[in-house]
Amino acid sequence: MQPWESDEFTEQLRQVGRQHYHDKHPFHRLMNEGRLDREQIRLWVANRFYYQKNIPIKDALLLARCPLREVRRRWVQRILDHDGWGDDPGGIEKWLRLGEAAGLSREDLATDRLLLPGVRFAVDAYVQFVASRPWIEGVASSLTELFAPPLMTERLAAFEKHYPWIDPGALAYFRSRPSLAARDSEHGLALVLAYCRNREEQERAVAALRFKCDLLCAQLDALYYHCVVNAEVGDPFL
Amino acid sequence: MQPWESDEFTEQLRQVGRQHYHDKHPFHRLMNEGRLDREQIRLWVANRFYYQKNIPIKDALLLARCPLREVRRRWVQRILDHDGWGDDPGGIEKWLRLGEAAGLSREDLATDRLLLPGVRFAVDAYVQFVASRPWIEGVASSLTELFAPPLMTERLAAFEKHYPWIDPGALAYFRSRPSLAARDSEHGLALVLAYCRNREEQERAVAALRFKCDLLCAQLDALYYHCVVNAEVGDPFL
Repeated sequence: MQPWESDEFTEQLRQVGRQHYHDKHPFHRLMNEGRLDREQIRLWVANRFYYQKNIPIKDALLLARCPLREVRRRWVQRILDHDGWGDDPGGIEKWLRLGEAAGLSREDLATDRLLLPGVRFAVDAYVQFVASRPWIEGVASSLTELFAPPLMTERLAAFEKHYPWIDPGALAYFRSRPSLAARDSEHGLALVLAYCRNREEQERAVAALRFKCDLLCAQLDALYYHCVVNAEVGDPFL
Repeated sequence: MQPWESDEFTEQLRQVGRQHYHDKHPFHRLMNEGRLDREQIRLWVANRFYYQKNIPIKDALLLARCPLREVRRRWVQRILDHDGWGDDPGGIEKWLRLGEAAGLSREDLATDRLLLPGVRFAVDAYVQFVASRPWIEGVASSLTELFAPPLMTERLAAFEKHYPWIDPGALAYFRSRPSLAARDSEHGLALVLAYCRNREEQERAVAALRFKCDLLCAQLDALYYHCVVNAEVGDPFL
């Protein structure tokens, strides 16, 4: 099998996003149409926080698996962005403030009190994926950021319009991410194009990105089940 | 068993350094007395490089194992110091320049061409220790830095005096480390005192520091065997 040319490889990656990114998930549609109540918004914020707080963990694992100093020197920026650095409180702190504005205490989020099992499993699977796969597959899995800016922009507008009970100042995380996601995905795509040279490596990169899309969707499946299906019919196991 | 008070715990840690730190190892004595030839100096530089280049790997593993953001925010500085950040070329780059001044190419160091098995095993054991033990034991293992500044200062003077064929400008790594080691070991000691609360945790911290001293010595054992014993009597296996 011949390796794909750069354009074709890039198109294969973008195709994964068009087909499998979580932007069209029914839970996101409900959220963006303003159809979630306060408790459901809080549940999303709390569950997504588990993903957020594991991002620097998976990025540190990726660093530890990457023998290329020039790659690590840029990748470490992601850890600084999420954990904070100097005067920047960082993305996790911004998410904690979003939680507070939505009515969740820092302890609610620190203790994973509202964490759904399906979300925990999906996020833990992501950390384990990056911990065990070649570093470049960890990079490929991060390329969901290629598709993130429009979703972030839509989400910000939806929150401002439909959920005005959340202080707009607490939406800083959503405002900060599009430019960082664009910068990071540009770096990630350049790495994947440079280091996945034969067809097998390229296909593993596509599979890594698909895996990442699936785990983002799995988080929303768990939320959808809990908020919609479960709320309508009652939990048969309780 | 009662936990040690801070002073007693600190003394237990310092006692490990007095008894087991590698400063008094015969190989260091030979080096500091100017009794190594160029080839032996190169061998030390090349083997120690394997340790140097694994430091950011083990620090990234420690980050990945630490759930405390405020700890990670400071610990990440060590990765920036070694890999470089912004205009700072970083400790690994400084060591590569030391290698060049000692007559080793970057490829010699990148390919581990001169790496002794005993050094590889010891360094890999350190990375594996940090990857598998609780993060605070990784912190405790870093406390050899409490004992590093005098060794660094003595080494710098020895190189300037006995090995003038190495450009003194290439000794920048040795000049940069004492102040960083003092800062880092102060942070590390504060963490160990704060997070090792019962006697069992305290004793595990002491054991982690002993383990680290042992692996620093094991690297020098391998060098001593290769440079001294082996050179005198010939290798019976060859």
